[in-house]
Amino acid sequence: MLPQWIIEKKRDGKALSEEEIRFFIKGYTDGTLPDYQMSALAMAIYFKGMTPQEVSVLVDAMMRSGDLVDTSSIPLPKADKHSTGGIGDKVSLVLAPLVACFDVAVPMISGRGLGITGGTLDKLESIPGYQAKITEQHFIDVIRQCGCSIIGQTDRLAPADKKLYALRDVTATVPSIPLITASIMCKKMAEGIDALVLDVKCGSGAFMKTIEDAEALARSMIQVGHAMNKKVSAIITDMNQPLGKTAGNALEVIESIESLQGRGPADLVDLTLVFAAEMIALVHPVKDRAALMKQLREKLHNGEALARFREMVRLQHGDVKAIDDVSRLPRASIKEPYPAPAAGYVAEVNAEAIGRACIVLGAGRKKTDDAVDFAVGISDLVKIGDRVSAGAPLLTIHANDRGRLDEAKKLLQTAFRFSSAQVAPSPAILKELR
Amino acid sequence: MLPQWIIEKKRDGKALSEEEIRFFIKGYTDGTLPDYQMSALAMAIYFKGMTPQEVSVLVDAMMRSGDLVDTSSIPLPKADKHSTGGIGDKVSLVLAPLVACFDVAVPMISGRGLGITGGTLDKLESIPGYQAKITEQHFIDVIRQCGCSIIGQTDRLAPADKKLYALRDVTATVPSIPLITASIMCKKMAEGIDALVLDVKCGSGAFMKTIEDAEALARSMIQVGHAMNKKVSAIITDMNQPLGKTAGNALEVIESIESLQGRGPADLVDLTLVFAAEMIALVHPVKDRAALMKQLREKLHNGEALARFREMVRLQHGDVKAIDDVSRLPRASIKEPYPAPAAGYVAEVNAEAIGRACIVLGAGRKKTDDAVDFAVGISDLVKIGDRVSAGAPLLTIHANDRGRLDEAKKLLQTAFRFSSAQVAPSPAILKELR
Repeated sequence: MLPQWIIEKKRDGKALSEEEIRFFIKGYTDGTLPDYQMSALAMAIYFKGMTPQEVSVLVDAMMRSGDLVDTSSIPLPKADKHSTGGIGDKVSLVLAPLVACFDVAVPMISGRGLGITGGTLDKLESIPGYQAKITEQHFIDVIRQCGCSIIGQTDRLAPADKKLYALRDVTATVPSIPLITASIMCKKMAEGIDALVLDVKCGSGAFMKTIEDAEALARSMIQVGHAMNKKVSAIITDMNQPLGKTAGNALEVIESIESLQGRGPADLVDLTLVFAAEMIALVHPVKDRAALMKQLREKLHNGEALARFREMVRLQHGDVKAIDDVSRLPRASIKEPYPAPAAGYVAEVNAEAIGRACIVLGAGRKKTDDAVDFAVGISDLVKIGDRVSAGAPLLTIHANDRGRLDEAKKLLQTAFRFSSAQVAPSPAILKELR
Repeated sequence: MLPQWIIEKKRDGKALSEEEIRFFIKGYTDGTLPDYQMSALAMAIYFKGMTPQEVSVLVDAMMRSGDLVDTSSIPLPKADKHSTGGIGDKVSLVLAPLVACFDVAVPMISGRGLGITGGTLDKLESIPGYQAKITEQHFIDVIRQCGCSIIGQTDRLAPADKKLYALRDVTATVPSIPLITASIMCKKMAEGIDALVLDVKCGSGAFMKTIEDAEALARSMIQVGHAMNKKVSAIITDMNQPLGKTAGNALEVIESIESLQGRGPADLVDLTLVFAAEMIALVHPVKDRAALMKQLREKLHNGEALARFREMVRLQHGDVKAIDDVSRLPRASIKEPYPAPAAGYVAEVNAEAIGRACIVLGAGRKKTDDAVDFAVGISDLVKIGDRVSAGAPLLTIHANDRGRLDEAKKLLQTAFRFSSAQVAPSPAILKELR
């Protein structure tokens, strides 16, 4: 079995056997099969796709390239949520402690931001002292104590994916549904979970620009999860405008804490409740979904979810005083409102443009080793459907540098569109798939 | 300009700019652009193709990755022939000295055999002492003295091609018309020639299996040649049966010498004359092609072409006594006729099967660094249309090992098909393109 024969077979549109896929991934992981053969195969997969059966084997092979998390000592069902990434998406920070209130353990392994997409870890690390890199035993202990833990990918979790993702990034082979599926699912399936809810973002600020692409990716991931005997569902959500009213790491932590205090923005809270209900319903019998939604909302108002979040931060060496008093979080030196050019109804808030403005301010990374400024970003963002008067703020810019501020303002000029007629708010949920 | 943007552009089916192609090839040649990006681009080119304009730039960039041969000191027009490779194809050995008799200089840079396809250099090196690796000055001197020289590719001739060819071989990106065109033409255009005749082989023993593919490749190469202001034509020739009656290095040298003595097999001689006339007609005014063919045939009968061949071999340190007495060439220890299973007309002689049998005997290479046994191969091959009686030899096997002989015989069992009805000889020339 020569690697080039396997590449040729895929190039010619044939399905690879389990043996061929395992041979390729094993060789690539241990370094006996070079990058240039992997990139040629990735490009062939980009053009010719993979069958659900092939994708499942690929996920399994990539998952088994590293260690699997052993969650058997946690005496609860385990569930997680994964988002394909968007602007202002801080759902995980509210969701994990909220779901943990309902006898569900949440072992959440998250990523850092890259490009315009923010990362849950960067947000949490804006809390002084928070440790995202802890041992597996520590991870399990945190979950056993407070019901959830959010950590970063260890070196031993799916190393094939780490290598392949970096390679795809520089060989124009990222936007391939089988390869995206494999990259996401090999890590999630290694977490030792029983159930997974996928948040597939769709729109200008997301990887998937159309509902068709988003649905294809969602179905591909659900198929793999089912093939691996996991309970999986997917919700396609809107990413034409950012989620909530903030984007930027510390600013999103503040909005998450406010949500955990029962005073978060409607779109963020509503979406979080839908995901929470879905995670719970996958592992526990739920007769009355409406009653569950009500209970979930109570946990945000009665401080129970916040207490679990606070405990998680404490157990991961974060400064809990910064949760009680958010002025202790990193703060930008410049706060400047960005005014509406004229009066009207907000018809468009371009998530991609706002994401780019945040990167310019320093909130994100262009390259994986760029440093992140936790303090900068935007807050007080208007939503589609809002009525604004001329000169009223569309958002507040938080910056640490005048030059970057000016650059960000230029990008923001293209971010908004207004209408003289009333505009309906944009729906947050586009489709639910089970 | 990032390499991945260029790969992405090609992946999405767009034409690359001259600047982008030159940037990629320059970076790949000097090692700043890694193999894995080149292989991803090659796979994208496999799927999306290239415009004639892109191919011309690619050829020019690959040609300029190394040195160009300076033939300006040769006071004659320069022409060459290139074959895409077949079984028993010894045309170059007869053609180069023959064309040199007509005030045309032939600076021929040839390759070695790989897979079932033989290589001109391996054939010439079966003449004891023959040096295919000589300096450029020596190459020019040989041409100035006898009108032709056949040498191997130097390290400085199109190094981008050397690197890319090896990469394509292990990444399933060989069968791409733009990439095949670039690989062939970048070397030929570096030879300092005015005219080129392409022999595009078509059939079971060739890379191009169908006339459509062969024609597409021929047209692609002609377009590039014209874009670079060279006179180029192409002849698509049959490779369903081997050319001539021998395959194997020393055996083909013997057949070439016989042809230069005016007693070669009809198919080989006829094809050589057609190519010779075409090469001459590209650089000199030819009013009467039939008269030229007659003159060409005379040069084979009067010994003039043989004298030039002899002189070329002498100037490249080969043992000319082996030309005068071919028993001095390497000879196999076993000579065994391979009998016809029954009487009939030969309906099929599978070139690929005979090529494989020759490799098994040791005449060719499976890998580029395999050693070649110059003595082994086959001779006295029947041609399509011949009438054979039961038990009469279809060919003679020349072997140096009993085990290999037996293995070769097994492969030969599938090489022939017979008919009880008369079979017309197979045409050697399928199509001429100018």
